[in-house]
Amino acid sequence: MDEFKLIQRFFTRSTPDVMLGIGDDAALVQPTPGMALAMSADMLVAGRHFLPDTDPFRLGWKTLAVNLSDMAAMAAQPRWALLSVALPAADAGWLDAFSQGFFTLADQWQVRLVGGDTTRGPLNLSVQIMGEVLPEQALRRDAAQVGDDIWVSGYLGEAALGLAHLQGRLALPDPTLALQHLEQPVPRVALGLALRGLAHSAIDVSDGLLADLGHILARSGVGAEVDSRVLARRPELAAELGKEFGLMAMLSGGDDYELCFTAPRCHREQIGALSDALQLPLSRIGQIVPTGLVVLDLHGRPMSISRTGFNHFAE
Amino acid sequence: MDEFKLIQRFFTRSTPDVMLGIGDDAALVQPTPGMALAMSADMLVAGRHFLPDTDPFRLGWKTLAVNLSDMAAMAAQPRWALLSVALPAADAGWLDAFSQGFFTLADQWQVRLVGGDTTRGPLNLSVQIMGEVLPEQALRRDAAQVGDDIWVSGYLGEAALGLAHLQGRLALPDPTLALQHLEQPVPRVALGLALRGLAHSAIDVSDGLLADLGHILARSGVGAEVDSRVLARRPELAAELGKEFGLMAMLSGGDDYELCFTAPRCHREQIGALSDALQLPLSRIGQIVPTGLVVLDLHGRPMSISRTGFNHFAE
Repeated sequence: MDEFKLIQRFFTRSTPDVMLGIGDDAALVQPTPGMALAMSADMLVAGRHFLPDTDPFRLGWKTLAVNLSDMAAMAAQPRWALLSVALPAADAGWLDAFSQGFFTLADQWQVRLVGGDTTRGPLNLSVQIMGEVLPEQALRRDAAQVGDDIWVSGYLGEAALGLAHLQGRLALPDPTLALQHLEQPVPRVALGLALRGLAHSAIDVSDGLLADLGHILARSGVGAEVDSRVLARRPELAAELGKEFGLMAMLSGGDDYELCFTAPRCHREQIGALSDALQLPLSRIGQIVPTGLVVLDLHGRPMSISRTGFNHFAE
Repeated sequence: MDEFKLIQRFFTRSTPDVMLGIGDDAALVQPTPGMALAMSADMLVAGRHFLPDTDPFRLGWKTLAVNLSDMAAMAAQPRWALLSVALPAADAGWLDAFSQGFFTLADQWQVRLVGGDTTRGPLNLSVQIMGEVLPEQALRRDAAQVGDDIWVSGYLGEAALGLAHLQGRLALPDPTLALQHLEQPVPRVALGLALRGLAHSAIDVSDGLLADLGHILARSGVGAEVDSRVLARRPELAAELGKEFGLMAMLSGGDDYELCFTAPRCHREQIGALSDALQLPLSRIGQIVPTGLVVLDLHGRPMSISRTGFNHFAE
């Protein structure tokens, strides 16, 4: 199968709402007047961001999901994507499942794949996502304010538990949900869009809660007090919490793709209602203070904070 | 050096004309009202698109150049780029030279690097470029018309000669220019912008002239007659033309990043003037006909056409 047939067969879908899709030197799309264009890119490398034998459907899903997560964290409506793939070989079965996973999620959000590249090489998946948001509604990292509540969505640490299970570092009685979180995370696009006008700042939790919250603090020039005891957790994770790993997974585990956001106290009620509407736990884990970072452990004692997240060049 | 310091040191430049640049979940930019957004991506893999010991300054330049070339082929004004890099290790000297090459070209066109990703992995360079063009001025592949002249810019085959020289398949007396074409191609952005309103269709020559012209023919539903004898060529290449390789390099060599375009006969004079203004050879190599592809060789005889270009999965 040659490169052009491969693109035609697996990655070309009808995009009637796009001016010019796959097949030219560039795609052409029409931005919505008045909206800012939000753009972001993520690159996934085999053996680093996913295990080489990961189910290709789930991998296709996740490749897009990590990018949608960035749109969610900006409160941007995701619209268009580019996908560049380096493959050791053109494996039709693998490509078929991969592309189905990618498009299953893309279709949920009407995201149009309008271009990209395919080549031979060590497995590498590179996606660029573009979305739209009114400039004043974008949830930036530099807009947290002293007195804001700090919130986080979903169950943190699940992906880290799933990875530890796969790597044999622990044995979960039923790893299904943890593996789902790891391999097929649900990007919080609906939450991000609903937080327009409610939240001041947001980030997606990809490197671990404390590391990512740290980015908000650094960019906003503020500090935070966080209480681990109020983080939502599933019983499976709770069972691990007697061990240090459980808490570390929640505070520092990567790959969760939940949203951490700050919002003024006056919006507590609306955010609570949002949790119900989206059927998604939203934990109010602390507040923004002028300076410093204090994290209370499961006994309410201030923790000493060292390794706070995942960094691709710091090992 | 960690990932964040690496991005800060090598890839973060001041972008005062951008709403929100590197450092958040996504960048925010303001599209120009009424313009279509042109977007494209190219992925470069070590050992496939470049030799692993390629000079990093030139590689940084080329990584952006191949993407700017896609904008040129759409007649789009390039505006923003995302760069995702997988690196075996964080080598400061290499990164410094690479980023300088990238930004030297970016600055020529005021292209702003607004985001991307860095990770460890086998060397892989993935760029996404976004530009702007009025929808009716975009040079699409599907708009060639019977009777159009076919034009090509610059000297084709130089990059293929440079590669053959590096690989020891031939020995050029002075490989300087051929290597420059291979390793540091000049994207024809100025030409692409100047062709607005003059050309009907365009493509950049990355896989070889006949292969890329073939894309225009297929998408436009037309044929072509091409005369190899009128292709511009430097004396160094002319010296190779007695051998089959020289002509094949001109017709089928990849990596030239010149523009092949079609334009109505009434614009011959303006295109000639453009050649003078840009100090760039523009060869009128044939014309669009209703069907078929006839290529005359250097003796004016119709050629049998087989291998017409480069394909990443067809070897």
